[in-house]
Amino acid sequence: MLNEKLHKIYESAQADALLIECEFLRKYLTGFSSTDGFAVLDKKDCTLVVDARYLEAAQKALRGGTVKVVEGGRAKALELVADRKTLGVPYPFLSAQSLEQLRAEGHETVDCMPALREAMLVKTEKELSCIARASEIAEEAFSLLLPEIREGMTETEVAAILEYLMRMLGASGTSFDTICAFGENGSIPHYETGARQLRFGDPVLIDFGCKVEGYCSDITRTFLFGDDGQHEEFKKLHGVVLMAHELAKEGIRAGMTGAEADAIARRYLTVKGYGDLFTHSLGHGVGLRIHEAPTLSPRGEEVLRDGMVFSVEPGIYLPGRLGIRIEDTVTLKDGKVVSFMNRTSRRALIL
Amino acid sequence: MLNEKLHKIYESAQADALLIECEFLRKYLTGFSSTDGFAVLDKKDCTLVVDARYLEAAQKALRGGTVKVVEGGRAKALELVADRKTLGVPYPFLSAQSLEQLRAEGHETVDCMPALREAMLVKTEKELSCIARASEIAEEAFSLLLPEIREGMTETEVAAILEYLMRMLGASGTSFDTICAFGENGSIPHYETGARQLRFGDPVLIDFGCKVEGYCSDITRTFLFGDDGQHEEFKKLHGVVLMAHELAKEGIRAGMTGAEADAIARRYLTVKGYGDLFTHSLGHGVGLRIHEAPTLSPRGEEVLRDGMVFSVEPGIYLPGRLGIRIEDTVTLKDGKVVSFMNRTSRRALIL
Repeated sequence: MLNEKLHKIYESAQADALLIECEFLRKYLTGFSSTDGFAVLDKKDCTLVVDARYLEAAQKALRGGTVKVVEGGRAKALELVADRKTLGVPYPFLSAQSLEQLRAEGHETVDCMPALREAMLVKTEKELSCIARASEIAEEAFSLLLPEIREGMTETEVAAILEYLMRMLGASGTSFDTICAFGENGSIPHYETGARQLRFGDPVLIDFGCKVEGYCSDITRTFLFGDDGQHEEFKKLHGVVLMAHELAKEGIRAGMTGAEADAIARRYLTVKGYGDLFTHSLGHGVGLRIHEAPTLSPRGEEVLRDGMVFSVEPGIYLPGRLGIRIEDTVTLKDGKVVSFMNRTSRRALIL
Repeated sequence: MLNEKLHKIYESAQADALLIECEFLRKYLTGFSSTDGFAVLDKKDCTLVVDARYLEAAQKALRGGTVKVVEGGRAKALELVADRKTLGVPYPFLSAQSLEQLRAEGHETVDCMPALREAMLVKTEKELSCIARASEIAEEAFSLLLPEIREGMTETEVAAILEYLMRMLGASGTSFDTICAFGENGSIPHYETGARQLRFGDPVLIDFGCKVEGYCSDITRTFLFGDDGQHEEFKKLHGVVLMAHELAKEGIRAGMTGAEADAIARRYLTVKGYGDLFTHSLGHGVGLRIHEAPTLSPRGEEVLRDGMVFSVEPGIYLPGRLGIRIEDTVTLKDGKVVSFMNRTSRRALIL
């Protein structure tokens, strides 16, 4: 017997059975994490097919639930869908090789990702609680990190301490490679953390997050390591980015499109003369993947709804000199933004 | 102008141009890491197409090299291949959606993964040195971890310390989620590290690795946390797995297939009566991905050659009770196995 969530996905996919190999989609359907395996969803059942390495763990984790566990690989999974005419497979998360192979084997295929995407857009209470916990851990780790930061530390060292703290607080890992950028390195939005040493007066940008039961958090804070009296520009720009961030969180409403949400921050930054320096989108959906739907950008057509989770992260970047970004992970509740981040200051902190 | 490596890939792909979106393949072709972007390879040039977020970093990293950098997204990349008849795309690492889109746009496609796979199988000196460094860091971190392990610590805490040490020693991150399994949890080959607390006399299995410039290391050690005098079985089985491990490393030669290599360890374990308890393959290729070609399993057809890098990881698993695995990352040089792991003991260590 399928539960309501699985039944709805099955119905809207308009296929005789769904065959899912992709890791995070398999986790979403079955609730079990493994590197390899298949989930098969039909009118009656959801079945997880895993090999011997995962069998014991899967049986233990899914005992008493609605998902069946059987041992095997691709052949076993295909056996389960042998008499189904049309197979639903997630085109964006299926390899071209697998598609060609299924077709060569005589299967008709249809893209089931629209059905999965729609289901995954709005988070359940359980999913929201995982993201809330991942956010709480990220913020708690950040608070514990701050007093540990010393002059002369490298970006990598600061990232290592932060990641260690998140792990110790119960995260299963990071949501993405931690970005820790000192001084001028902050101007590269997706900077690769390196060996730059921290100097008195440096701006510090840290963009990080962690996972709890597969669900991600995402947060960025930018602050000064000591005030050498030469950072009027940093303080001014930080205030502008913070205002854009707060305006966006106050202004975003369920019913708006991603583009309308993005425009709130972008319009303000443009009026202030920094529109061209806000070189990325305002936000992205957050869930089992760190970047998922909806997209809050000038091209974001998705209508925002209660239960969606996304980042709000305006920024200003002066190439080769300075970058400021302030990011929360938030959800929509009763039509309005509720931030998962409530324990760390978004203000222009000076350590 | 293409360098020799790129020229060879272009020639063997038998396409008019290669269009690569997949992250690790893009990194392999261009030497630059980014979440998004395209690499375009034609008869004359290799071009990296990245958006504004990565432009500054890419230009800086690739200055003076053979790879051109241009700003843009998919449209820009397609512009570069507009007049090419046949596009080489990596079918196993291209989404079905992208394949369908390219075809709908009138492109002829061919799978260029065989050409890339062949090139990537044999590592360059530069690649070997990254894997050697990633191995050295993993071993060094393990040595520093051992004296920190205390009764009552959770698996997650031990994993967190280990990952922190690898980061502090210069790793950019882990190769995969660290597996730290205490006691009976070791019997699950791909165990998900959890909250089990360490007790005196527990067997401890740690399977871990880190990345240096994108390249992975992979190592597993199994040992006892204190000797409560009740682990004769552990010691005996550990000796058997260790012998299988050493026999494999001594016996594997360039020119063998992956299946022949696997058989060395499997035959020994079978003779000893544990063949059925060795439930996975002997090893897998290691490179930019933690699992890549060649495969050392009963079905491994690839012929092993000098410069290939793979894991050697026999194991014995007693479901619900005990698991032992001993793993090195190794390469083939002058026809024989050379291990990257030389700093930690493979013996039945008792802490």
